[in-house]
Amino acid sequence: MRILTAAHHAPSVGYSQPWNFILIRDRKSRLDIKKSFSKERLKSIELLTKDEERKKKYLDLKLEGILESNLNICVTYDHKRFGPYVIGRMTIKEAGIYSVCCAMQNLWLAARAENIGVGWVSIISNKYLKRILKLPSAIKPIAYLCLGYVNKFEVEPGLQSLNWLSRLNLNKVINYEQWNSCNSYTEWKSFNQHLTRKATFPK
Amino acid sequence: MRILTAAHHAPSVGYSQPWNFILIRDRKSRLDIKKSFSKERLKSIELLTKDEERKKKYLDLKLEGILESNLNICVTYDHKRFGPYVIGRMTIKEAGIYSVCCAMQNLWLAARAENIGVGWVSIISNKYLKRILKLPSAIKPIAYLCLGYVNKFEVEPGLQSLNWLSRLNLNKVINYEQWNSCNSYTEWKSFNQHLTRKATFPK
Repeated sequence: MRILTAAHHAPSVGYSQPWNFILIRDRKSRLDIKKSFSKERLKSIELLTKDEERKKKYLDLKLEGILESNLNICVTYDHKRFGPYVIGRMTIKEAGIYSVCCAMQNLWLAARAENIGVGWVSIISNKYLKRILKLPSAIKPIAYLCLGYVNKFEVEPGLQSLNWLSRLNLNKVINYEQWNSCNSYTEWKSFNQHLTRKATFPK
Repeated sequence: MRILTAAHHAPSVGYSQPWNFILIRDRKSRLDIKKSFSKERLKSIELLTKDEERKKKYLDLKLEGILESNLNICVTYDHKRFGPYVIGRMTIKEAGIYSVCCAMQNLWLAARAENIGVGWVSIISNKYLKRILKLPSAIKPIAYLCLGYVNKFEVEPGLQSLNWLSRLNLNKVINYEQWNSCNSYTEWKSFNQHLTRKATFPK
């Protein structure tokens, strides 16, 4: 409940709080969901047939804990809640979904603070998920989570340990003023000095 | 940089880190973006013509700080990064966008820890935003943010103080096993006891 309270206190567009948290322990549902995972995983592996090395790495990955975790949670989006007029959602319709993701990240951090591991399973068919969890047609599943106490927390992302990908240097994902206008903080600072004298420059 | 480091350490689907942070101080860009906001705001107000009370409340709302904040940030999504094969994104394509939102929420919490206020402006035309910030066609703006030191932090969400909406009771957004199968934790516990004896019940 502490974890869900943190999730529920996420910011949401127009204060629409458009999330639901479906707590799942039923073994029958989990078996069905695992079946959907296994099917989608095979499809994903097929896409790697031309890349034997990555395929081999993929086969080693732990990508879900549907059956062995203590609890599964499906986080959903209800676009009808407090609608149709939701402040801030009339121009950018997807803002409601973005709110659910903010709740997700709050959940994730709160769980970690309680020493509970969270795995987000995105290799899953939402069509089957909706059927298994009897979701009304207007409700969209956003995340399927496996939660539980874990043997240990890794020190770095699993895909980094496996040499699949590395963390980008932060500078590579920061842009100044426009997509390609200047590339460094120092350059930006001098470039910018004549533009806005009043505002304080971030330290 | 501490705030952006927190954002950059968000979990991302297949470790794709698909975000960019465009830092904006240029007054010309801000004026153009403010123009887009004002236009979209008027459209939103027009939708309330039949609801005079809400319309009046809407006019009182502080919905942006584009010009007066110290810094604007546009957070974007790059679906091509490390693609086309991204683990976990082959089945649910939107998972990349969800990752950017997780970064957003990390950014928000980290900013709050530094006593920096963040406002997310979603009353804005992404079409104009892309033009102003010269984003390539493949890059999707997800969030437009105003950051800065604030006079005070409110104790509750603005729309709650204004009696626009209230926070839902947490129990209203928790479901057990399926969308409508049982409504309370107590009921769930007894309903569930015969199903999965091995797993520990969450306390």
